[in-house]
Amino acid sequence: MDERVRSYIREHLDDGMAELKLLCASRSVSAQGEGRETAALVAERLSMRGMETRIASTPGNPVVFGEAPGRSDATLLIYNHYDVQPAEPLELWDSPPFEATVRGGQVFARGADDNKGHIASRLLMLDAYRAVHGEYPCRIKWVIEGEEEIGSLHLADFVHANADLIAADGCVWETGGVDPYDHPYLYLGLRGILYVELRCKTGTLDAHSGIGGSIFPNAAWRLVWALYAIKGPDERIRISGFYDAAWPATETDLAMLETLPEEESYLKEQYGLDRFLLNATGLELKRRALFEPTATVCGLSSGYQGPGSKTVLPAEAVAKMDFRLVPDMHPDAVFDALRRHLDANGFDDIELAHLGGEPPARVDPNDPVAQLMTRTAEEVYGREAHVWPFLGGSGPMHPFVHELGIPVVANGVGWPGGRPHAPNENIRIKDFQLGTEHMARFVEQFPSVAGDR
Amino acid sequence: MDERVRSYIREHLDDGMAELKLLCASRSVSAQGEGRETAALVAERLSMRGMETRIASTPGNPVVFGEAPGRSDATLLIYNHYDVQPAEPLELWDSPPFEATVRGGQVFARGADDNKGHIASRLLMLDAYRAVHGEYPCRIKWVIEGEEEIGSLHLADFVHANADLIAADGCVWETGGVDPYDHPYLYLGLRGILYVELRCKTGTLDAHSGIGGSIFPNAAWRLVWALYAIKGPDERIRISGFYDAAWPATETDLAMLETLPEEESYLKEQYGLDRFLLNATGLELKRRALFEPTATVCGLSSGYQGPGSKTVLPAEAVAKMDFRLVPDMHPDAVFDALRRHLDANGFDDIELAHLGGEPPARVDPNDPVAQLMTRTAEEVYGREAHVWPFLGGSGPMHPFVHELGIPVVANGVGWPGGRPHAPNENIRIKDFQLGTEHMARFVEQFPSVAGDR
Repeated sequence: MDERVRSYIREHLDDGMAELKLLCASRSVSAQGEGRETAALVAERLSMRGMETRIASTPGNPVVFGEAPGRSDATLLIYNHYDVQPAEPLELWDSPPFEATVRGGQVFARGADDNKGHIASRLLMLDAYRAVHGEYPCRIKWVIEGEEEIGSLHLADFVHANADLIAADGCVWETGGVDPYDHPYLYLGLRGILYVELRCKTGTLDAHSGIGGSIFPNAAWRLVWALYAIKGPDERIRISGFYDAAWPATETDLAMLETLPEEESYLKEQYGLDRFLLNATGLELKRRALFEPTATVCGLSSGYQGPGSKTVLPAEAVAKMDFRLVPDMHPDAVFDALRRHLDANGFDDIELAHLGGEPPARVDPNDPVAQLMTRTAEEVYGREAHVWPFLGGSGPMHPFVHELGIPVVANGVGWPGGRPHAPNENIRIKDFQLGTEHMARFVEQFPSVAGDR
Repeated sequence: MDERVRSYIREHLDDGMAELKLLCASRSVSAQGEGRETAALVAERLSMRGMETRIASTPGNPVVFGEAPGRSDATLLIYNHYDVQPAEPLELWDSPPFEATVRGGQVFARGADDNKGHIASRLLMLDAYRAVHGEYPCRIKWVIEGEEEIGSLHLADFVHANADLIAADGCVWETGGVDPYDHPYLYLGLRGILYVELRCKTGTLDAHSGIGGSIFPNAAWRLVWALYAIKGPDERIRISGFYDAAWPATETDLAMLETLPEEESYLKEQYGLDRFLLNATGLELKRRALFEPTATVCGLSSGYQGPGSKTVLPAEAVAKMDFRLVPDMHPDAVFDALRRHLDANGFDDIELAHLGGEPPARVDPNDPVAQLMTRTAEEVYGREAHVWPFLGGSGPMHPFVHELGIPVVANGVGWPGGRPHAPNENIRIKDFQLGTEHMARFVEQFPSVAGDR
């Protein structure tokens, strides 16, 4: 690897941290309507790296697109998002979520990991090439959207409408980094997702529970029963047809999972668990973690939630849920099946809102771009890379992979203690350095594999 | 009835409203730790009526006790409470909940009905006798507690410790008024209550739903399943032994219910309902409303509850519940049975907190004090009084009736649109006037029945 590029990165980590602080201070909680100002900020930061930049408006947050030529015509696409998850519950943060704070070699902020830390890393990588060589090793295209955390509501439309603009020989996805054993990890796909809100209204007014308890419908009870109709303690999702399109893990998949490290004790400690669902362990736990589609209650809300007691009978109750989908499930099909399931079980009064969905995506493990990312990771980290068939999380990878045919691979600056989506989200500065060096190494060699495809 | 007393009341309604505004402005949400300042205020208002007053401290809010001699040695006890329910959700109030506001012949405030309006009415009644006669028709004792809305946690102890102090020939309970047909209603008992909080913790940290969805326990799901184990859509409470001590309605009870007006269309309109539970109507609806013990989910809280989506897997979930109990159920027995039921159904990890309980109470319909209250209601209102065997709500009536042997009857200033425990709680000024006149009439004649017992 080009030692001058590596040195530049190591000597300019403070600049990377300053960039990250700037990005984190720009609030962009897409679930709460924020993001437009951050889009303008991000576009400005790309322009400063010599990229031709546009801010493509959508019915929601805009998509920022940047493009710059390189020494080679090989074209690398980068995907990130500038939006973040809500910071609530605020009282569990040890420092203000929108003021990136350095403590003990870590940076804490909402977005420090997911996903502004990765943007800052890639900007530093570009700076290094500009400073050392005055040009990039290949053509760089960069898509940074603002609705990833609410299901990338408008990115697929942007991809469809701009297929030629974003055509590329490979794509580096938003996030990556090291696993609990400080090995770099890669992933070759993502699960899909459907996010819904179930709302039950049984009247127009909360009632005194003494008056209504024996005779009024109770929205909280109806919501509980509707949820029970979706999944019971056996963890089997009861929606008719739910599993029909779900591919089971193949022998090849299981062999790939076998090579991955065991994370059980790490996860138990990190999340304070005393067991895993259904007491799964070993390969079965690894299989479940990825290949079992999910129905997760993300939130419940009804009636009185303050301190002490209030004898109220709620007229309204709300649940937020997500479903993680494996190949070849489709969020719209699951949404329709859920609606039918609720109706068939006597819950046609439950309002069901579709808050976003993305199909799953998978990349061939033998793709040269995937193999380059693995090889460069092992060179930079000096350790074996752990390659996942796909991750448990989701993202808008499907149109890139399955419509435009671009192989998508992963690199990043995260670590397992990064608490994405939770209070005290953070990255370690040493991971920021290595992840940035890895990205520089991959970009340097990318032209050599782009022609192989 | 003494016309000068009646005239005094009618001419001093504005004074009663001023008293009510003063009381409502003194915040006393016992569930949120408020009340001590209101206790001092209430004691002061009793002293101003020539009552010897004490503020009896308890581990919670103090009990205010006042006593004044009268022309007769017959002793009437009055029971009220100065605490109120939480005002949330604040955004549904049309005027500030703690600033009593008059609009269209009604007074709106938290506590306007439950229970400060009744305190103000009884103070005006006392004023009338003092102004007109310089003395009360009988000895008056008044207990005003500050924890009724959180289950009267310390009132029973006060009653036990002060049995001689509060001994009386009869007692007028906190509330009453007119029903949807503008007939006065009375009640001869209250259901009991148990209030609990169920808390499920499955970890120490909320997780990313993509990481944990297939393999981590989810507190929201476990809470849903635990609740389902308590009651399903058939409305039958599944706690083993729950119904054992519950008396069914007797033929006499059903006959009493038959005389009560049908409230179905009124309740449907008031609460925006399209049907009652299990499609009950007629006498069966009346029977269910009182004689069916309940399990009500009063609140649900878990995970993300803000706008839009957040893909989080909650580590904690809470439900608030109350159980309304019919004679001879006991809250402590129900609590123990609930704990055993959760354990037996695999939910021994659900923490169960006892937030208060009161046993049910019933008074003999043939008691002379009860019959006097009915007769005077019909004289003052000029309409038949509707007498309920007991009410669906709860209160600390048990020790007065079943330990001290004091017959408890009801009078008041409420109406069915009063929205107790809900936003825009209110009373009508015309009901305030008639309820106060009724109380004056009852007190005037009370010595004539006190000796009959």
